[in-house]
Amino acid sequence: MVLTDIEIANSVEMEPITKVAQSIGIEEDVLTLYGKYKAKIDARELEKLADKPDGKLILVTAISPTPAGEGKTTTSVGLADALSKIGKKSIIALREPSLGPVFGVKGGAAGGGYAQVVPMEDINLHFTGDFHAIGVANNLLAALIDNHIHHGNALGIDSRRITWKRVVDMNDRQLRHVVDGLQGKVNGVPREDGYDITVASEIMAVLCLSENISDLKARLERIIIGYNYSGEPVTAGDLKAAGAMAALLKEAIHPNLVQTLEHTPALIHGGPFANIAHGCNSVLATKLALKYADYAVTEAGFGADLGAEKFIDIKCRLSGLRPSAVVLVATIRALKMHGGVQKADLGAENVQAVIDGLPNLDKHLENIQEVYGLPVVVAINKFPLDTEAELEAVYVACQKRNVEVVISDVWANGGEGSRELAEKVVALAEQENHFSFVYDAEDSIETKLTKLVTKVYGGKGISLTPAARREMQELERLGFGTYPICMAKTQYSFSDDAKKLGAPKDFVVKISNLKVSAGAGFIVALTGAIMTMPGLPKVPASEKIDIDHEGNITGLF
Amino acid sequence: MVLTDIEIANSVEMEPITKVAQSIGIEEDVLTLYGKYKAKIDARELEKLADKPDGKLILVTAISPTPAGEGKTTTSVGLADALSKIGKKSIIALREPSLGPVFGVKGGAAGGGYAQVVPMEDINLHFTGDFHAIGVANNLLAALIDNHIHHGNALGIDSRRITWKRVVDMNDRQLRHVVDGLQGKVNGVPREDGYDITVASEIMAVLCLSENISDLKARLERIIIGYNYSGEPVTAGDLKAAGAMAALLKEAIHPNLVQTLEHTPALIHGGPFANIAHGCNSVLATKLALKYADYAVTEAGFGADLGAEKFIDIKCRLSGLRPSAVVLVATIRALKMHGGVQKADLGAENVQAVIDGLPNLDKHLENIQEVYGLPVVVAINKFPLDTEAELEAVYVACQKRNVEVVISDVWANGGEGSRELAEKVVALAEQENHFSFVYDAEDSIETKLTKLVTKVYGGKGISLTPAARREMQELERLGFGTYPICMAKTQYSFSDDAKKLGAPKDFVVKISNLKVSAGAGFIVALTGAIMTMPGLPKVPASEKIDIDHEGNITGLF
Repeated sequence: MVLTDIEIANSVEMEPITKVAQSIGIEEDVLTLYGKYKAKIDARELEKLADKPDGKLILVTAISPTPAGEGKTTTSVGLADALSKIGKKSIIALREPSLGPVFGVKGGAAGGGYAQVVPMEDINLHFTGDFHAIGVANNLLAALIDNHIHHGNALGIDSRRITWKRVVDMNDRQLRHVVDGLQGKVNGVPREDGYDITVASEIMAVLCLSENISDLKARLERIIIGYNYSGEPVTAGDLKAAGAMAALLKEAIHPNLVQTLEHTPALIHGGPFANIAHGCNSVLATKLALKYADYAVTEAGFGADLGAEKFIDIKCRLSGLRPSAVVLVATIRALKMHGGVQKADLGAENVQAVIDGLPNLDKHLENIQEVYGLPVVVAINKFPLDTEAELEAVYVACQKRNVEVVISDVWANGGEGSRELAEKVVALAEQENHFSFVYDAEDSIETKLTKLVTKVYGGKGISLTPAARREMQELERLGFGTYPICMAKTQYSFSDDAKKLGAPKDFVVKISNLKVSAGAGFIVALTGAIMTMPGLPKVPASEKIDIDHEGNITGLF
Repeated sequence: MVLTDIEIANSVEMEPITKVAQSIGIEEDVLTLYGKYKAKIDARELEKLADKPDGKLILVTAISPTPAGEGKTTTSVGLADALSKIGKKSIIALREPSLGPVFGVKGGAAGGGYAQVVPMEDINLHFTGDFHAIGVANNLLAALIDNHIHHGNALGIDSRRITWKRVVDMNDRQLRHVVDGLQGKVNGVPREDGYDITVASEIMAVLCLSENISDLKARLERIIIGYNYSGEPVTAGDLKAAGAMAALLKEAIHPNLVQTLEHTPALIHGGPFANIAHGCNSVLATKLALKYADYAVTEAGFGADLGAEKFIDIKCRLSGLRPSAVVLVATIRALKMHGGVQKADLGAENVQAVIDGLPNLDKHLENIQEVYGLPVVVAINKFPLDTEAELEAVYVACQKRNVEVVISDVWANGGEGSRELAEKVVALAEQENHFSFVYDAEDSIETKLTKLVTKVYGGKGISLTPAARREMQELERLGFGTYPICMAKTQYSFSDDAKKLGAPKDFVVKISNLKVSAGAGFIVALTGAIMTMPGLPKVPASEKIDIDHEGNITGLF
């Protein structure tokens, strides 16, 4: 009988979080407890530990995602457990899952099998309230905008050019496009409006890039909420909103400590969207992890062309973080899909399909080695039907790049299933590396975009819509030209066409719009419509979720 | 120099919440800590303590509110402290404040001066996340409704008759009336919609009336979200939403323990609106307080015609709770306003105005004694400019009813300022009482409404709009005829006209609409438009709120 994730999670006894903290030298007086198994670590410890040397940062990324699933989080959790097992002080630093998708189809985002972070039902529901705080801070700003217009609009905000949306942590397509302020003069001013899911709020990205509360406040002040009738940006600072917004984030800024099923400390903090934002956990959590551990394992959203690239060009560039080694996660199943096999046919051995899909893996390896300048190991996240011949095809391909391939069997075996990977990672992290950004801050926006497409995606170049070109000139005029780029592109392909799997060539990426997230500190390049508010399926997962008289939750996954 | 509430709160050292719990015999293993000074008490303790005798329940209510302020919460806090001071084991059981008003004009709702519950900035911001959980549960149900319609509407929900609104814990008038589901078939189905503030969600009332998780789930299932094309109600149960909603409330159902500035235990839990809902803290918190204390002090929203009446006819009727004594809070300032003085003129002595305002106090006393059948004491919440002659007028009036009047000076002196009140309350609670509901469950809806108006408000009777009459017949047909009534009426007058202060007579209360809160278990009688989504003022309080580098919050009040 195969146990479900929540059954496995419930079968393992957790350690008190104070004991987990103690295991890496965190004193109880810097913890704020949220029950017995969750705590926040005071982010100000980072300033106090400034002189302490950092551990090594290990980035887990993946090939281009497919519906077959890659298991990046599961691999990350297992790797951190394995590093503990081979005697290294290790911490995993992950994103917090979003609540909305839990009720849709996705299920949880806390690893799987015997490589999970726990308490999983808490982590997947409200956790320590960070996302609720971010949502309220976002919606306070929205209320202040409309209240300002309602009371005379002294700032001259052009209600047709408000870019700040309200948010809710729910998959609720009904709210994508709304008209609000209806029914007369006491009820606001009618305008077109819309909602995003909370993780798409710029405040999420702001929180995840902030170094401390002062930095958080300064970033919040810079947030652009729209434009006035003269076409100049209006900021949260203009609305005197930043202090109250930051006060609402007073707890949310502190990283959350939980544990893996094997009691490895896990810092789970922040979770920005990986398309219109940078898709990484918080800088504060990652930096704290490096202070307390010899090895901090972290992951970035989507494949290595998007998640790892943004991790490097946005998170590392803005924070000074530097990774020591990269793990690229792949599955035989996903490679077969890149080789043209449909999901329904993945059960049968198909060596040729693996070979046909390998160019996707190879292009990611090329990027990591030659563009990002980092040592890399491939982790094959093991599935029961993988065959020796299929695996052999991966070994052969990676040998050409002098990259080692390791089987990771953490779903079934936890850290024990990742012992070899851990040893390779330790060896890799000792190697000298030639860490490099993809572009320079001083490059023009057009050059940055072109470098991303030609160097990382393998395309010919970019085309800009007239709107995007106008916006580019405007952003440079406003002084945002030196900001890094956050590409909002399909994660399924190196190109901007989700159907082009493998490693497409000779394509042009069409940039439809450019906008600035001035608080976060990056320019978002949009390639077509990006969904920032998901919907629920016909039979939502919520129908199966229940709780009994004693408070035990079932059906969460 | 007069200190602000937050300065006073910060000047007092709190005790660890585990120690506060210990002082009333609550073991640490039934607590879930939220930092050092907040905890949740496992609500299941109530079942375990079933055989333990209950303490006495003291209800604090007030005259009809005026802009001068009455200080009901402050008096309640001071009374609980004073009961501790005279050697009684006492607990205060209050509502949680709503977040939205904090950014508007209202400020906090955690008492004032030296009679506060702390940590006040936590209690006034996110506290333990209960309201966020209620908001998400509410909005999950909303998303499931529109998702159901989007995917074919098998239940035949009439989108023009959806009564379930989305909520946000923010004063945001822009959201009162919206049209959502716009921009084509992948983005929902266009319909008129609107938002309430979170405290107006029926889920808030449901949580506050639930006895345990099973009861909570059963109530959630009964919630009516609207009507189908045949005119029959559609419930949350029909949408298979109750399990997931209850799972979202898994922490919120447990009462929160904090402390007063004098370390008296405070259970702060739930906070339903006092117009369209019953305006009392949770049944679970009140019942737990009675298990752990000799005296549990609680309050109800608005004046004794609304808050106390709903406390009795809804909360006590549905839960079996029975109060032993009532404290009626008044201020000289408020009595003067009932006597016709404007707020700007309250500084000058005006005995005649006090006398002219006393009929309001007297009618509330009559109700408490003769309708509710409970012993009562009047607490005059002291203000610096009150004169002896003004106070004397109150003594004289109350003597006629054989009711004692006590000066309460808790803002300046904490529990010490309420010692006499505490002693009177102890004596009163020993008296036999003739507790009585205002109406019988079996009375028809029309009879219930008439009894409320004639017995409690002092009016002549009711008039029903044609819509209300139709709705009344429909509610009786659907089997809701035996539900208690929740009157949604202005709190400023016994009548339905906010301008009729004092004790108006010969008025008729016009019932414009009747609707059922089937999950909570009451019928809401609406008298004209009731505001369930506040707005922000021209200069919102949020502009003054700030946080420094170390996380200290300023300007909260």
